[in-house]
Amino acid sequence: MIEPNMATMIAVVLTDADVDATELDDRFRRVVDATFNCVSVDTDTSTSDTAVVLASGAAGRVDGAALETALLAVCLSLTRQIAADGEGAETLIEVIVDGARDRAQAKRVAKAIVNSPLVKTAVHGADPNWGRVAMAIGKCDGPDDTDIDQDQVVIRFGDQEVYPTRVDAAGLAALSAYLRGDEVLIHVSLATGDAACTVWGCDLTDGYVRINADYTT
Amino acid sequence: MIEPNMATMIAVVLTDADVDATELDDRFRRVVDATFNCVSVDTDTSTSDTAVVLASGAAGRVDGAALETALLAVCLSLTRQIAADGEGAETLIEVIVDGARDRAQAKRVAKAIVNSPLVKTAVHGADPNWGRVAMAIGKCDGPDDTDIDQDQVVIRFGDQEVYPTRVDAAGLAALSAYLRGDEVLIHVSLATGDAACTVWGCDLTDGYVRINADYTT
Repeated sequence: MIEPNMATMIAVVLTDADVDATELDDRFRRVVDATFNCVSVDTDTSTSDTAVVLASGAAGRVDGAALETALLAVCLSLTRQIAADGEGAETLIEVIVDGARDRAQAKRVAKAIVNSPLVKTAVHGADPNWGRVAMAIGKCDGPDDTDIDQDQVVIRFGDQEVYPTRVDAAGLAALSAYLRGDEVLIHVSLATGDAACTVWGCDLTDGYVRINADYTT
Repeated sequence: MIEPNMATMIAVVLTDADVDATELDDRFRRVVDATFNCVSVDTDTSTSDTAVVLASGAAGRVDGAALETALLAVCLSLTRQIAADGEGAETLIEVIVDGARDRAQAKRVAKAIVNSPLVKTAVHGADPNWGRVAMAIGKCDGPDDTDIDQDQVVIRFGDQEVYPTRVDAAGLAALSAYLRGDEVLIHVSLATGDAACTVWGCDLTDGYVRINADYTT
């Protein structure tokens, strides 16, 4: 029952703030929803993911909003480390979807992109293949997303628009160099509203396959 | 615009039956729903998948049910070939989920299993890891699936029950040999009803990563 190799995500955040338990719970849930619940290495969900916050009270009363900002900074850092440290990962992928009807739609589309094996392998291969991003957006064709109009969508790698703006050969070479970096941003605007969500993941590599195919449990 | 390397699934089925267009459409839609719409190599959906049936009428009238059975046999064979021929695939995975409340639940759970990267890599590594199958079932924890009770679920590889029945070391070795075959069946019974669904996919291999990371489009 003690086997670190088997452990999944267990995050414990400590603070000396003196804060009401209910308030702390509310603030931490918001932070977890925007951080740990927005990371996906391979879509597979552990049975034992846990995030805990403990407040000793030793530092006395603090401003609640400032506490939440601090919790967000800590959990955001941990979340990005989880994605960067995913099995076999070589590149951290951040996906921002904005201009969405509501946060649920933004998260649905962002997760479809960050979890797409074809997007993940394109990043691994440093291929600025916006068509795979468009495909992942297009997968969100359920009854909740009929308002997404492909002619209104904008796709960017980093701050370089790649759709609908066409990138020339020199631009594609620059994008490929960008995709070889340690961290890649895919930024999609949907034009269905004003909501946004950011999620994190990683590229899909031979290392992922080897790690998960070669051990027996 | 003619580039076979870019083509996705285009299935054209020909028959000499003389059959009413509406009846043929109805029968073919049922067949496609049970075959092509139940295969997933990597969760990513093409923009141009197409299935067409053409009837010349040269053979005269035929029994409608017999025609549908024949269409099903053809499309089932094509569907299994698609899965077996997936990018980098070495093993065809068939997932049967039965004892479900309705077909939609059976298909949701079956897709969660066949699309799980951890299940796909376990099959690739010939690891009889029923825990990863249980994890994939557990991912279906949305409001539509609260009736699934993990204590009632039965998991089998081929016809060998692996949960809740425990398999001894000799049994695990036999299962590992089974998983090294060209085709693997994962059979799950949910105990929430009488509905069933079968889906097809393939293992996740280094070959998948190389094929999709190494070319630029």
